Amino acid sequence: MGFPMPVFSVSDPADPRVAAYTSIREKDLTSGHGGRFIVEGKVTLETLLTRLRFAVESLFLAESRLEPLKGLLSKVPAGVPVYTAPQDVMDQVAGFPMHRGVLACGLKGNIPQPGEFLAKDEPRSGPLLLLSDISNHDNTGACFRNAAAFGAGGILLDERCCDPLYRKAIRVSSGASLFLPYAQGGTGLDMVNAVLSAGYTVWAMTPRAEAAPMQSLPVPDKLAILLGAEGPGLPDDIIAAATPVRIPMSGGFDSINVATAGAIALAHVFGEKQG
Amino acid sequence: MGFPMPVFSVSDPADPRVAAYTSIREKDLTSGHGGRFIVEGKVTLETLLTRLRFAVESLFLAESRLEPLKGLLSKVPAGVPVYTAPQDVMDQVAGFPMHRGVLACGLKGNIPQPGEFLAKDEPRSGPLLLLSDISNHDNTGACFRNAAAFGAGGILLDERCCDPLYRKAIRVSSGASLFLPYAQGGTGLDMVNAVLSAGYTVWAMTPRAEAAPMQSLPVPDKLAILLGAEGPGLPDDIIAAATPVRIPMSGGFDSINVATAGAIALAHVFGEKQG
Repeated sequence: MGFPMPVFSVSDPADPRVAAYTSIREKDLTSGHGGRFIVEGKVTLETLLTRLRFAVESLFLAESRLEPLKGLLSKVPAGVPVYTAPQDVMDQVAGFPMHRGVLACGLKGNIPQPGEFLAKDEPRSGPLLLLSDISNHDNTGACFRNAAAFGAGGILLDERCCDPLYRKAIRVSSGASLFLPYAQGGTGLDMVNAVLSAGYTVWAMTPRAEAAPMQSLPVPDKLAILLGAEGPGLPDDIIAAATPVRIPMSGGFDSINVATAGAIALAHVFGEKQG
Repeated sequence: MGFPMPVFSVSDPADPRVAAYTSIREKDLTSGHGGRFIVEGKVTLETLLTRLRFAVESLFLAESRLEPLKGLLSKVPAGVPVYTAPQDVMDQVAGFPMHRGVLACGLKGNIPQPGEFLAKDEPRSGPLLLLSDISNHDNTGACFRNAAAFGAGGILLDERCCDPLYRKAIRVSSGASLFLPYAQGGTGLDMVNAVLSAGYTVWAMTPRAEAAPMQSLPVPDKLAILLGAEGPGLPDDIIAAATPVRIPMSGGFDSINVATAGAIALAHVFGEKQG
């Protein structure tokens, strides 16, 4: 069919060349996966191939998708193999129906620690988003999506957060975790202290009544917005180290999703900076 | 055990008294369900029993949950039966593992049409939220949760929106769809026209560049915030009938989740009214 990259047909679900794509759902539950991550769907594949933030190890496509994706496949780096299989073989490899028929395997490389990230003297516009103990893939993905939408300069995650390169986090992020700069590691308190030392004001988002209403505060040039676990919220020591900030809400109701809280803070800051 | 309401043990998964709880997931995909809806989990059960917005037909609890829920069960209306079963029987009835062991069946009663809702001369504080063509249960539930958090006076949904009393929508709403006043029916354009006729300003939230940035507008006393389908957005005729409003965002990225957009608008309006 005249594809510029090597295309290999796979007919055996046990073919070792597609071993990275086996039992994808189980792999979501384990960390590591040999430093690999899985991308699914055309839009996120396009982000992977055009943003060039991560190395691509291989693609795995349903045979029927090869021709429609021809334009996008011209962006596959030289030497990266494209495996194809009939839909049923692909489903057997993945362990569940792969309706979209589009998978790719990326390589994480070295994800920096928050301290390394801050030490890099890169020009950064937009606030940082700090995540502590966000263990839900949907929330992590949504935080990346919202951070990209409101021009955040990067995301720092502590060691208790889930991996933003989990398949589902990538999907929910609309691909933002494939290009938004981020760092991960260490405790939440260490992360906050490193950000404070780098000259940032840290808004610790909390529903506590004693926190300052977000709209009452000036937006500093170097701002970091800190979000904690949805149920318990941020621990006392982290809140005490930072500036407690709340989003004014109607009384008598539980509060909002953590990624939504982050979006509201990011949108507010973005709007203030534009105004 | 001294419970004030009738408690009935169920040992046969085919027992007709728990027929409302069979194959719950399949029922999620059908409308109707005889005017019933299913609530799961302790928190939403508490909302159902304390807010008293909807009639309760029955409760269905794993045997192990009966004693720990004793306090809450005192709120079960007189004559409402509580069925209990061993966990494995409950799982067989529901069709999947019911880890929480807490289910209840409510009756929808008459959900008003948007026109009826607006005609009721009730005092209402807070903006209205209007939903057009929101067919995803998570998004509908999140819209209710956010509307409750930011003191919305009610939600109007057109006929193309999914039912806010679907099990998953209720769960994602944190129970808000069990108490926040809402109405559903008719086309999106009819709904918008009815709201305009009732004297509201309608902000049609859209990422289009020609829309006014949200922060540039005064917040009217009678405001309705209108959200459309996540992919295509609101259709032209609806946007033309209303005031197109956008949330300023960083260029070059897809945009945000529809419920998140609603939360940002609701939070902005709530903050302005407090300030």
